[in-house]
Amino acid sequence: MIAEYDRHLAATPAGEGRYDVEVPAGWAVGGGINGGFLLSLMVNALRDALPAMPDPLATSAHFLSASVPGPAQVVVGVRREGGSVATADVELVQGGVTRIAATVTCGDLDRFAARGSASDRSLAEPLALPPIEECFASADAPDEVKAFVAMLGRFDLRLDPAHAGWGGGTPGGTGVVQSWWRLDDGREPDVVSLLTAVDVLPPVTFDLGLPGWAPTIELTAYVRARPAPGWLRIRHATKQLAGGLFEEDCEVWDSADRLVAQSRQLALVPRPMPS
Amino acid sequence: MIAEYDRHLAATPAGEGRYDVEVPAGWAVGGGINGGFLLSLMVNALRDALPAMPDPLATSAHFLSASVPGPAQVVVGVRREGGSVATADVELVQGGVTRIAATVTCGDLDRFAARGSASDRSLAEPLALPPIEECFASADAPDEVKAFVAMLGRFDLRLDPAHAGWGGGTPGGTGVVQSWWRLDDGREPDVVSLLTAVDVLPPVTFDLGLPGWAPTIELTAYVRARPAPGWLRIRHATKQLAGGLFEEDCEVWDSADRLVAQSRQLALVPRPMPS
Repeated sequence: MIAEYDRHLAATPAGEGRYDVEVPAGWAVGGGINGGFLLSLMVNALRDALPAMPDPLATSAHFLSASVPGPAQVVVGVRREGGSVATADVELVQGGVTRIAATVTCGDLDRFAARGSASDRSLAEPLALPPIEECFASADAPDEVKAFVAMLGRFDLRLDPAHAGWGGGTPGGTGVVQSWWRLDDGREPDVVSLLTAVDVLPPVTFDLGLPGWAPTIELTAYVRARPAPGWLRIRHATKQLAGGLFEEDCEVWDSADRLVAQSRQLALVPRPMPS
Repeated sequence: MIAEYDRHLAATPAGEGRYDVEVPAGWAVGGGINGGFLLSLMVNALRDALPAMPDPLATSAHFLSASVPGPAQVVVGVRREGGSVATADVELVQGGVTRIAATVTCGDLDRFAARGSASDRSLAEPLALPPIEECFASADAPDEVKAFVAMLGRFDLRLDPAHAGWGGGTPGGTGVVQSWWRLDDGREPDVVSLLTAVDVLPPVTFDLGLPGWAPTIELTAYVRARPAPGWLRIRHATKQLAGGLFEEDCEVWDSADRLVAQSRQLALVPRPMPS
């Protein structure tokens, strides 16, 4: 059986670096589409274009216009090949309009691991979360939330209650949201799904009493290792809201306690609801 | 008097989004040129092309080949204009070869500040450094270091001794480097020089006993506010070295205790010296 996630990622080569894809309504959040999933969709097509460089080491993306469910094209333009990395421009286009303009530097993490192990070290503690069964399950979200956030039907999210007071109307003000996460159908994490993982939690602004859609302006993600099977642990945190903009840092840890992905995004603070 | 830094940033419009610039030998680090300065050079030209959007909110850059001192062109391609932000591809080219491929989303921070103040808040403590006179001054670096790192003649750097043990051969292993910093000639910081600031300290690998040049693969910087006059405080930190790659996070604080810039870069761990 092909997992739903992989069906959603499907890309059909259309020649000259172009791939036909379908933006699935199943990854909608309100009127928009989850940006992390769209990056996975783009990078999955890029891997077809650059098979010797399967790992998206650094993906930087500027969000130019709002994607909608339906047909789209991923357009890959390789900028440099050879040596230990390759760099490509990768765009998501709908009806002639660029939705996302990304640049991706990719490589082969196995080759990097083989040469780099002497200097390997971690200066961070693995993300500590309460046991999964003590966390708030996305499956238990109210029906109206599930209807608005269609992507909640694509995965299992288990939020740390210490940063989820907003769910009961009492945001903690910590500027942190953290969670266990795994895809449906037992689909194990890989370097492609890590790009979904870095943008899949509710924005940290929820815990600051500012609910609502927080449109991403720019997101850069680094994939640091191929993730081990099992649950991922994800942490979002912010340091500053200024001028209606905030940054959101993300760490993703795998079941082997490795820091497998890092990202930062600049986003717009949700506007207050009209009262 | 025009400050040396501004003379080094000079860009001459050459039509169709092209600007003639000169990569100054004065910003060399060994055989390379400081990447942050090159981003300032690129963004300074971009500001001429998009005068209504003077602030580089998000700059993401992939470093494709090594820049050398001498003539270069900055090539600006505007991707989207209108609304509160604009996005442009900005490249640094020498002899027909792209050195740096960047995408910049810019806007006007005054307009953002005017609409966003209700939600403004900081969740981070301003960077605390020892008094300037207790820090290690770049002016006191050994002559052979100054000869190798030409850019040390462009500014005044005052390293926190708590993370500068490597200077005396005893790296602290903290994965942190932090410093006061200001440009020569009393040239005050602005949004352009912040892009220099995020890459101007020695790499955090120095404090991990891994001295040497750490080539940047990708760097993304967010400018969060226009800096107040005076010294900047800069902190670099890393969480992980894996497969010969490390990430370096940067915060820049201004004299008014505001977090004015953030960046993260993915770089290659310096290779051990042959023994």
